[in-house]
Amino acid sequence: MKIGIVGLGYWGPNLVRNFLSTEKVTGVVCYDSNPRQLQKIKGRFPMVECVGELTELINRDDIAGVSICTPPSSHYALGKRVLEAGKHLLVEKPLALRSSEDLLNLAKSRRLTLMVDHTFVYTAAVRKMKELIQAGELGEAFYFDSVRVNLGLFQHDTNVLWDLAPHDLSIMSYLLEKKPVAVSAVAVNHFNGFEDMAYLTVFFEDSLIAHFHVNWLSPVKIRRILLGGTNHMIVYNDMEPSEKIKVYDRGVDIMGDEAVHKALIQYRTGDMYAPKLEDTEALSLLTADFIKSIQTGDRPITDGESGLLITRILEAANLSVKKQGVKIELAV
Amino acid sequence: MKIGIVGLGYWGPNLVRNFLSTEKVTGVVCYDSNPRQLQKIKGRFPMVECVGELTELINRDDIAGVSICTPPSSHYALGKRVLEAGKHLLVEKPLALRSSEDLLNLAKSRRLTLMVDHTFVYTAAVRKMKELIQAGELGEAFYFDSVRVNLGLFQHDTNVLWDLAPHDLSIMSYLLEKKPVAVSAVAVNHFNGFEDMAYLTVFFEDSLIAHFHVNWLSPVKIRRILLGGTNHMIVYNDMEPSEKIKVYDRGVDIMGDEAVHKALIQYRTGDMYAPKLEDTEALSLLTADFIKSIQTGDRPITDGESGLLITRILEAANLSVKKQGVKIELAV
Amino acid sequence: MKIGIVGLGYWGPNLVRNFLSTEKVTGVVCYDSNPRQLQKIKGRFPMVECVGELTELINRDDIAGVSICTPPSSHYALGKRVLEAGKHLLVEKPLALRSSEDLLNLAKSRRLTLMVDHTFVYTAAVRKMKELIQAGELGEAFYFDSVRVNLGLFQHDTNVLWDLAPHDLSIMSYLLEKKPVAVSAVAVNHFNGFEDMAYLTVFFEDSLIAHFHVNWLSPVKIRRILLGGTNHMIVYNDMEPSEKIKVYDRGVDIMGDEAVHKALIQYRTGDMYAPKLEDTEALSLLTADFIKSIQTGDRPITDGESGLLITRILEAANLSVKKQGVKIELAV
Amino acid sequence: MKIGIVGLGYWGPNLVRNFLSTEKVTGVVCYDSNPRQLQKIKGRFPMVECVGELTELINRDDIAGVSICTPPSSHYALGKRVLEAGKHLLVEKPLALRSSEDLLNLAKSRRLTLMVDHTFVYTAAVRKMKELIQAGELGEAFYFDSVRVNLGLFQHDTNVLWDLAPHDLSIMSYLLEKKPVAVSAVAVNHFNGFEDMAYLTVFFEDSLIAHFHVNWLSPVKIRRILLGGTNHMIVYNDMEPSEKIKVYDRGVDIMGDEAVHKALIQYRTGDMYAPKLEDTEALSLLTADFIKSIQTGDRPITDGESGLLITRILEAANLSVKKQGVKIELAV
Repeated sequence: MKIGIVGLGYWGPNLVRNFLSTEKVTGVVCYDSNPRQLQKIKGRFPMVECVGELTELINRDDIAGVSICTPPSSHYALGKRVLEAGKHLLVEKPLALRSSEDLLNLAKSRRLTLMVDHTFVYTAAVRKMKELIQAGELGEAFYFDSVRVNLGLFQHDTNVLWDLAPHDLSIMSYLLEKKPVAVSAVAVNHFNGFEDMAYLTVFFEDSLIAHFHVNWLSPVKIRRILLGGTNHMIVYNDMEPSEKIKVYDRGVDIMGDEAVHKALIQYRTGDMYAPKLEDTEALSLLTADFIKSIQTGDRPITDGESGLLITRILEAANLSVKKQGVKIELAV
Repeated sequence: MKIGIVGLGYWGPNLVRNFLSTEKVTGVVCYDSNPRQLQKIKGRFPMVECVGELTELINRDDIAGVSICTPPSSHYALGKRVLEAGKHLLVEKPLALRSSEDLLNLAKSRRLTLMVDHTFVYTAAVRKMKELIQAGELGEAFYFDSVRVNLGLFQHDTNVLWDLAPHDLSIMSYLLEKKPVAVSAVAVNHFNGFEDMAYLTVFFEDSLIAHFHVNWLSPVKIRRILLGGTNHMIVYNDMEPSEKIKVYDRGVDIMGDEAVHKALIQYRTGDMYAPKLEDTEALSLLTADFIKSIQTGDRPITDGESGLLITRILEAANLSVKKQGVKIELAV
Repeated sequence: MKIGIVGLGYWGPNLVRNFLSTEKVTGVVCYDSNPRQLQKIKGRFPMVECVGELTELINRDDIAGVSICTPPSSHYALGKRVLEAGKHLLVEKPLALRSSEDLLNLAKSRRLTLMVDHTFVYTAAVRKMKELIQAGELGEAFYFDSVRVNLGLFQHDTNVLWDLAPHDLSIMSYLLEKKPVAVSAVAVNHFNGFEDMAYLTVFFEDSLIAHFHVNWLSPVKIRRILLGGTNHMIVYNDMEPSEKIKVYDRGVDIMGDEAVHKALIQYRTGDMYAPKLEDTEALSLLTADFIKSIQTGDRPITDGESGLLITRILEAANLSVKKQGVKIELAV
Repeated sequence: MKIGIVGLGYWGPNLVRNFLSTEKVTGVVCYDSNPRQLQKIKGRFPMVECVGELTELINRDDIAGVSICTPPSSHYALGKRVLEAGKHLLVEKPLALRSSEDLLNLAKSRRLTLMVDHTFVYTAAVRKMKELIQAGELGEAFYFDSVRVNLGLFQHDTNVLWDLAPHDLSIMSYLLEKKPVAVSAVAVNHFNGFEDMAYLTVFFEDSLIAHFHVNWLSPVKIRRILLGGTNHMIVYNDMEPSEKIKVYDRGVDIMGDEAVHKALIQYRTGDMYAPKLEDTEALSLLTADFIKSIQTGDRPITDGESGLLITRILEAANLSVKKQGVKIELAV
């Protein structure tokens, strides 16, 4: 089968490269409204086909699935056209700039795969954390604390929440498998444009809490998740060249039945270990999962449901920002 | 003059040691309700006097000022007794567990010094940042982002906000010299006791925002403040053995008058420098400032006003936590 | 002009990529004794020409210069053929596995450029250090201490000295511009093959000393140079994502004329700064320097002389290893 | 029993503090030729006795052992006097500034304990490494590579080798338990005094090699030991606040019987772990070991033999430095 790629800006060429080496993919067909981008991709990957009209790409019989790599504001409309043309859809994150079940329903009714490109979920680090959590290493989760800050790049059609938080929300959603029930957020816009920094809190039914700091205005690059649990605590530092994941045998043991301020608390500090991580490129696993889903009908990990959840959280976050941080319940 | 120290637990001995080597201080008199603590301090510093009754210490004519180093819940009552006895007062942070102008009014009416032991304000790192900001290195502040997390120590009469956030709030207050107007906070209690982790946001009249993550349940120790501004950005990493302060010539330049999503944005990334920091112990500068204030009547840096502001912020934060993160305006 | 590339293994493709975007270069012609490597390079860069015989490449009139990217043991013979065919020569480091002036003399007599690919000399970090040293920031150099260790890759035709030390020797030679006078080295071979770890000392006429630790058997990757001088000290940590160069205002000031063990020593510890480094890829500057040299006849920075010096040092080092660390004088 | 401390400069007070809380020690008696140092120690530890004459301290019947904490050049003469007076001896490192069996023979003939204060051997990090090595975690040792560099402090009666290398040599000796057979060293003196930086190589009978970089002229503080072995590799970074010891499941596996340059090499990179380290102060374990040795007659870990070995290595190193790095065999 062939795969179509729409949008050859920053991220599209990575999808071209990965689909070109994904099993079962016999060709890649590219479209971009800017002919220069098409020239560039042809120069770099001469084996791709380029087409001058989106309609042409969408209607070709030899194309089974289409990957949308355009700016977020176009995801919904383009995604809809792709699904309506009967093609399986892989859409760049976020799924859309507003939450809507339309794309999911469309995909479902036509028995098409709908996948969102939450690449981080396929990284060796996140997969290893998932494996550890499934093996009970974390125990009951206390909190998920994420910091993703850097200088730039200011986006032109979304604020920093929609730009950066999908990465960490998709990781949280994949790892914790718990249903968030409410959201609050504060964000600031320093340059008369979109919000350039934000703090987002996600609440769950129990005492689990998740918090996200995203920022385009930080002098240093920090990408770190702290994951506290009853059995172990995990630190995921994506800036480490190796040893991105560290598992700490640290925690608190409460002696006796009394309330904690009366009971005896013991701090446990044991060994730390950094499991070896695989080398495989995350995006190659993601494109393989898309192809597998097309062939088998199985859901990919980052399916439409997970993509929709993230847009719901972000939509609620935007509303909370407008209402100055008020807690917004998520529709069940 | 002599100085009285009430409470010889964890922090009190540090005040003993520093007052013993503070100029103009001729003696230190100690009291603790636990006689063992008095024995221990006498063993370590045989030149101190110990008294068996608080009243005795408070009423001695040769004692000019008293330092209260007891748990937070006793600060208000003990501080009041000290001031009523006509002694100058240095009280461990926080000033009290509820905001009240009583102590300030009492000190004012009796012309006594009221100082809060916000030690971090006197560290070389914070003083250097103050110096840099006064010299215009920061420019207009964008944000103040603080993370102070660690494993333990759970406190027995306050939550993590009242325990850890005073450090960073006092630094913020000293550095930015701007009046906060509102507060929101979320906090979680995982062990049926006081809240053990919290996120606190402080709002100002303009787009400046301050945010604090405090946590007793983190596997790793992080103490880091990011300070973004128009001219430079500053990172204060208290865990660095040297080079705690790094000043980055990084930022964003907006070209043209248009809104940022249309205008041309240029990222500026220049040199970084780490100014040399002095070696002087913070607490020795603080005790010297207390003595100087007693002698001259000048206000110490961390005076009652600044202490009161911090309790107001924390009180509002506690209220916000109860109301699930609702923004609480600070009384003007 | 066109450029020929001989050897398309690990490093050759990088030269292809860079020459393809170097000004004045109109084409790249490739040869490898292994046809698969030619297929791969053609797949990746379809605009290159491939030839099936080395003689064909060397004798083509449209090729002005040839880059040799084969294993070290073939550098001398291939380089000689290239120069004898009247082509300018860029040879992968080291220039050869024994020191000989043949290639230099050949190039000189035919007025051809002879350049060695010591890429590190063209990195932004090394160029910045050069700039700082030329501006007097270092002062008189005390020492040059280099550590380049990692797990693997064991080479099959050289020991770890010939494999890794050329990088640091070329940096030393470029930065210090002083003539080494002697060499000593110890090295160990743990697997019945070539030496897999080594310590190399290079002596100069004065008290300057240079030392190199190279190791294929280290669990962690360290690439760090300490450069001590009278005015400042420089640390070059190549593993830092940014801030690779740090300049420390630290040193020792000797008071009085007496010998140091009697005189008063003062330690100076001032600010540190990390100058901004440029983004340009080192290899693109190197290929541009090769082309410029071909056109102007000017010597490139990493010319035959510097390449020869490094082989002399390494040859002396090998001899010292055999003689158990005896100091070997370098021929003047 | 009581313990005498001779020399109350930088290190002596630490021994006073530790002996005061060592079981079985009923008192500490101090002597220093400078009366001010005695006043200071009395001020800090009022329970110590001070004597005005060394003879008095050495001859007192209630003193069982004496700790010598004076500059290295006086260790031999003072140690001899202590042993001749029939007292057990703990001497600051190095045992003496020349290798001699006198002190050992004297101690042996009088059945007295002779111990050298190689404190690092008693640190939690080194004891943990010993435990790991004894459990077979390292396998056969490939190399021991140590870097201990910093700015200052220049010593007034020894060079940097005798000042800093005893730490790492004692660690090496304790961990590897192998007999060194030869030594080579180069060192430089930049200020007309003692050598301020040095590289020392220690050879063993097999292919094991140990190397030490000690330096008083480094802008940054590095204290790191790499320990390569067939099973695991260990990194001991003493500058890490926690996680000082990291154990890497990394190495090289050789397939087949052929020489390594022909055989297939496989790099093994598995998990890393950082074992929890105990909190106990090293010096308190050392003073306890001294007391235990006095009582039981058992040898302490850092006994006279190990102290003598280190002076032999250093003496050979000094000779090698004079002979420009020539390898010096160690007497068997």
